[in-house]
Amino acid sequence: MTEKIARFFAEQTPSTPCLVVDLDVVADNYGKLATAMPDSRIFYAVKANPAPEILRLLVESGSCFDTASVPEIQYCLEAGATPDRISFGNTIKKAGDIRIAHELGIDLFAFDSIEELEKIAEHAPGSRVFCRILTSGEGADWPLSRKFGCEPEMARDLLIQAAGMNVRPYGVSFHVGSQQRDLKQWDIALATAGTIFRACEEQGVILSMVNMGGGFPTRYLKDVPTSQAYGEAINDSLRRHFGNRLPETIIEPGRGMVGNAGIIQSEVVLISRKSANDDKRWVYLDIGKFGGLAETMDEAIQYPIQTDRDGPAEAVILAGPTCDSADVLYEKAEYRLPTSLKIGDKVTIMATGAYTTTYSAVNFNGFSPLKAYYI
Amino acid sequence: MTEKIARFFAEQTPSTPCLVVDLDVVADNYGKLATAMPDSRIFYAVKANPAPEILRLLVESGSCFDTASVPEIQYCLEAGATPDRISFGNTIKKAGDIRIAHELGIDLFAFDSIEELEKIAEHAPGSRVFCRILTSGEGADWPLSRKFGCEPEMARDLLIQAAGMNVRPYGVSFHVGSQQRDLKQWDIALATAGTIFRACEEQGVILSMVNMGGGFPTRYLKDVPTSQAYGEAINDSLRRHFGNRLPETIIEPGRGMVGNAGIIQSEVVLISRKSANDDKRWVYLDIGKFGGLAETMDEAIQYPIQTDRDGPAEAVILAGPTCDSADVLYEKAEYRLPTSLKIGDKVTIMATGAYTTTYSAVNFNGFSPLKAYYI
Repeated sequence: MTEKIARFFAEQTPSTPCLVVDLDVVADNYGKLATAMPDSRIFYAVKANPAPEILRLLVESGSCFDTASVPEIQYCLEAGATPDRISFGNTIKKAGDIRIAHELGIDLFAFDSIEELEKIAEHAPGSRVFCRILTSGEGADWPLSRKFGCEPEMARDLLIQAAGMNVRPYGVSFHVGSQQRDLKQWDIALATAGTIFRACEEQGVILSMVNMGGGFPTRYLKDVPTSQAYGEAINDSLRRHFGNRLPETIIEPGRGMVGNAGIIQSEVVLISRKSANDDKRWVYLDIGKFGGLAETMDEAIQYPIQTDRDGPAEAVILAGPTCDSADVLYEKAEYRLPTSLKIGDKVTIMATGAYTTTYSAVNFNGFSPLKAYYI
Repeated sequence: MTEKIARFFAEQTPSTPCLVVDLDVVADNYGKLATAMPDSRIFYAVKANPAPEILRLLVESGSCFDTASVPEIQYCLEAGATPDRISFGNTIKKAGDIRIAHELGIDLFAFDSIEELEKIAEHAPGSRVFCRILTSGEGADWPLSRKFGCEPEMARDLLIQAAGMNVRPYGVSFHVGSQQRDLKQWDIALATAGTIFRACEEQGVILSMVNMGGGFPTRYLKDVPTSQAYGEAINDSLRRHFGNRLPETIIEPGRGMVGNAGIIQSEVVLISRKSANDDKRWVYLDIGKFGGLAETMDEAIQYPIQTDRDGPAEAVILAGPTCDSADVLYEKAEYRLPTSLKIGDKVTIMATGAYTTTYSAVNFNGFSPLKAYYI
């Protein structure tokens, strides 16, 4: 926990559950990523945390923005970003939303199918388009389905086809999976991108850009490679697969930009056992799967959890406060908490700056969405 | 689809996605449940859908209310329910919330541990308390973890202990699991409840009430037993396990009260394939897991989906509109939709009156929470 956040909790004693984000950590993450990858433009994945305080800070830092919807585009514009710094990165867009984005000045669009490409050509004529390719997602903590991207052969064909339409085939994108700790996965994807660049060039279509997506991890329970290690590995791969004709590159960090900047404070509502000889305590918090911790789904993201108590720790099952059986946070992950933990104690859930506030349910079981403070 | 809902869509053409609930269907469900189980009091599980229109209708119909939080208690009071018609059925409550509920006049509380019982005795002295027991959840579509309830032996001990505290041991509750189609599960739980009643009586503690919880299913893709079949089976079980000293009984329908009353209208945003020879189309809707269809988690609840198109149908994968890989609705469930389906077409998602509006994320990917109309 940063000193600033500790002071905030001590002085303000906000009611729980709440998220507190230290903006200095976000600024520091941006600086480290920019230094590690000086040749790439950073497009912050707004969906990770669209708080205006974060967006304004990143606008001033020089960041660009990857958006998923028209409202997200508007948040960025309101925070002071010019349209040339915003991409519409969702491959699934309503025709009307493409038109609005185009009217707002957005000129960079993602696609992964002929159907989407046709929509963009019709409603955002003249725009630059990039095609997302499928990757395996191996090594990522948050599951990557086949929902986004198409097979590389199809990407090649679509980009060549795009050259004959009212758009500008601009490049290729991929996403190696969120919280990706295996550096090799970027190399595999960059090799595929290189192949598509050469195949397109043979047909007279010159691509300019590789969008390497997100996936940059934040530190939860396990150690993760540093920004610098990512930068070096990706640089090596780029040289290997593109030689001395390096493309323009983009990265889209979300979790890696804001994850470790936030801390959720929660209160222990109940500690109990299911029978007299139950060997595991159930610890119920005032935040759960529907209050902001949706990424505990299948126990995928395992947040470090701390308390002020010390002494011996014991295995616990952690659950949220709602009347929903599925609102269990960690049952298999073998969390341990001090046996001295008491009802009413505060616990801090670390590295919760990304994918928490906006995931929270609007009113499930009558509970309010997660409150957040940006300091 | 009811005529009233069809007319609403035709005349109002609301923007999608949206939920429309026909209040006549709710009234009809209430009537059928009340007729099928004339000796049980109905406590509507407010968390299924806390819309004021539904609560007001049920207040007038004579329903009682099962609540999960102080805000839900307040919704019921605002809808005109008197406090004696409201139970605080969450076994996980903050001490401060118990006190507020008590001040609001609530007198019926759930617990499943000595720790919760002590909180109730301190902050809601004199209240009636019932202890929830664990059940297996076998046969239920929506997973039932061990989150709620305790082993029957512990329940017996706690109820006997409660008699010496500042509360009134009132009964036993159980929940057979949401969307429970196996009538035998109620019999198993009622047998356990009967055993606890007799064991308590031996110690001089007379219990009055069995809370049989929810679990009454709504019709999705598979047929479900009628309200009447439930009523008869439960009545038989009660006589078998309690003889001629029938306890007061409570049921807590949520899904069974409002599930089939609502219909979500959504728009097809994209239909595409991942490669030239892909044998399955991906159909992307403007609503997904984070926009209200959270219960598609692990494809647990399978809503019937209809379109106006006809002709031959083909297997599809259904997904939501967000940039989240986990936002896939049905991949294994083998949904089939007409090959003539087009981008921009409307689809209707049936039986979505329960557990949709409040589950929707507050702002994920910039998308607004699910809009709803009660007619």
